[in-house]
Amino acid sequence: MSVTAPQGFRAAGVACGIKNSGALDLALVASARPCTAAGVFTTNQIKAAPVRYDQVLLARRRAGFRAVVINSGNANACTGPKGLSDVYSVTELAGFLLGFPPDTILVMSTGVIGVPLPVDKIRAGLMRAVPALSEEGGEAAARAIMTTDTRPKMGVRRLTLHGVPVTIGGMAKGAGMIHPHMATMLALITTDAEIDPDHLEALLRAAVDASFHRISVDGDQSTNDTVMILANGASGARVDERSMPLFQEALTDLCIELAKAIVQDGEGATKLVEIRVRGARTPEEARWIARHIARSPLVKTAFYGEDPNWGRILAAAGSAGVTFDSDAVSLWIQRENEPPLLLFDRGSPAFYFEEEARRIFQAPSFRVLIDLGLGEGENWVWTCDLSHDYVSINGSYRT
Amino acid sequence: MSVTAPQGFRAAGVACGIKNSGALDLALVASARPCTAAGVFTTNQIKAAPVRYDQVLLARRRAGFRAVVINSGNANACTGPKGLSDVYSVTELAGFLLGFPPDTILVMSTGVIGVPLPVDKIRAGLMRAVPALSEEGGEAAARAIMTTDTRPKMGVRRLTLHGVPVTIGGMAKGAGMIHPHMATMLALITTDAEIDPDHLEALLRAAVDASFHRISVDGDQSTNDTVMILANGASGARVDERSMPLFQEALTDLCIELAKAIVQDGEGATKLVEIRVRGARTPEEARWIARHIARSPLVKTAFYGEDPNWGRILAAAGSAGVTFDSDAVSLWIQRENEPPLLLFDRGSPAFYFEEEARRIFQAPSFRVLIDLGLGEGENWVWTCDLSHDYVSINGSYRT
Repeated sequence: MSVTAPQGFRAAGVACGIKNSGALDLALVASARPCTAAGVFTTNQIKAAPVRYDQVLLARRRAGFRAVVINSGNANACTGPKGLSDVYSVTELAGFLLGFPPDTILVMSTGVIGVPLPVDKIRAGLMRAVPALSEEGGEAAARAIMTTDTRPKMGVRRLTLHGVPVTIGGMAKGAGMIHPHMATMLALITTDAEIDPDHLEALLRAAVDASFHRISVDGDQSTNDTVMILANGASGARVDERSMPLFQEALTDLCIELAKAIVQDGEGATKLVEIRVRGARTPEEARWIARHIARSPLVKTAFYGEDPNWGRILAAAGSAGVTFDSDAVSLWIQRENEPPLLLFDRGSPAFYFEEEARRIFQAPSFRVLIDLGLGEGENWVWTCDLSHDYVSINGSYRT
Repeated sequence: MSVTAPQGFRAAGVACGIKNSGALDLALVASARPCTAAGVFTTNQIKAAPVRYDQVLLARRRAGFRAVVINSGNANACTGPKGLSDVYSVTELAGFLLGFPPDTILVMSTGVIGVPLPVDKIRAGLMRAVPALSEEGGEAAARAIMTTDTRPKMGVRRLTLHGVPVTIGGMAKGAGMIHPHMATMLALITTDAEIDPDHLEALLRAAVDASFHRISVDGDQSTNDTVMILANGASGARVDERSMPLFQEALTDLCIELAKAIVQDGEGATKLVEIRVRGARTPEEARWIARHIARSPLVKTAFYGEDPNWGRILAAAGSAGVTFDSDAVSLWIQRENEPPLLLFDRGSPAFYFEEEARRIFQAPSFRVLIDLGLGEGENWVWTCDLSHDYVSINGSYRT
């Protein structure tokens, strides 16, 4: 139930020794037919070699792609000119083994920054990955791209376009360094629909904007973030202007599932929290405030401590750099399928029972809702809490 | 060695029961002579009642002040109209007990947000604080303003102006919610120099800009931050245009000492780290990047883990929203009184021994230096690491 769910895609995940643990660390996804492709990449000024490589390739041509090679355990970032030549070595061998030119192969890397890519290990891994390619390989591939993730993230959507069944499959990884605009996360989406590159790009951008761009684990943004989609047309169904909305809905829905899975598996995370801001002047201001709250360590430790300390949430909102009148602000918290509980009512503490507020914060998933009372702008992000485990995981990541 | 070091100032710190622990929680600082005053306040949109009160008072008049009342354990923030009327109640009684009009009394509060100020407890505390005022009360006052601080923060500078000895004393508190532009921190500076309000304001702003505005513990910014200075002229020396630079130097130096003390006592902090960025287009861009690095949880947990994972530092720099060419960037780390160690050399990893880098990160205090290779802009911030204790302290602050 992953990238191999659509027709014509095979995948494999092998252990090639980049990770000392011996866990799977090399994924290969290949298509029986040439694919159109689109990608959304990190906006970090420091871009990893695979990101630079893919961006150059996709700027030149957006069709004819055959495979994606993804390694975990090493980001191939901050590796200088050698980093880029290592990517060429990898795509050259992958292309040779698959029987396609090197420039039909895309790449992603995730892991430690600043360490040269162990190309020999990846070469040896590819020699085993190519014969291992299978239609059942989706889960192994999803496992092979994990770093501090505790579980693979996969999803599938099926729909019918013009009477023809079409499938979209996806896998993602990411647990730390997650922040809007694509922080240490990789996602690969495949589909057997036929989609021309311009439509594919538009579909992907809209889906990412409503999903991966709305999640924040720790506010850090990585050098490697990539979301890519491959469309091989094997289903025989073509996505045209008329069927685009239907495909968009399914693609966005899948991306939201994968994005939320990343937050729920956030490093050390115990909670999934939706921060929703409304009544802002514009959706952009609402989004800015929601993100600012989502990156506040004080707010996130209060989530962890199940402490409905709404003052910290308001203090974070107030320091986002957006002007508002604190006497017009209200704040609610809400558990799924329950009415919201008002904690702060236009500038003053509301009357509520502390135990009731605490019960909401004890849920594995809840919503914080802020109304600024200024206008119609509304937006939200999904985030998680900041726990002891986050510190443990990141205090000793390389050791 | 605190706010009572300058002539004509007395202080007291008492326990009035705001803190359940029974620790000191009410400080009173009074001057035998009327003072000129200046303040720098939080830029948070959510401003606590005492901040609003002081700002109104200082906008109206900047001389004739007699005392400052500071309570810890309750921030009197997000408390609605009641919060402001509670401040009036406090200044009214303090003025009455001291024999001055209420509007000669300034106030500060720090602690939990959103809980009404326990005015009765503060009233009872003032009844005991006024008779307890003494020239030895500076340390008790410094202790009474602590929240999650583990130690009081005090300092003194002595200088000679026009042949007359002058003293500057100060106390500060703050451990969490610390970020540039005055996050959960309070500081009160006293001096027996005579300084007119305009000069006093200029002196304070310049000193704060070089000290309190350069520290970051967790990137959170509070509703209550206040740095205030009182000048009572008791020494007989007047600060004029000629002696301003001398006074500025001493004042800035004292503020830097207090600001660094806040970072070193940051919630759960085990390291004091200077993040210095040079080679930026402008000092503002350098400052922006330095601050962005200082608020990255991934960077701060790496400091905690004594892991010289410079890739995270570069990734944080690259996502600050400032454009630069990653191939021109270099990065060093440096232990005090030692030459810097080059880790990243214009886009590529440098040759160095991992043990050497780790030894620098094991120091209680070190510097990270980044050169962007773009221009002459340089700036820095002081920050600390992010530890398990930070999470413990903030996961259960109110319980």
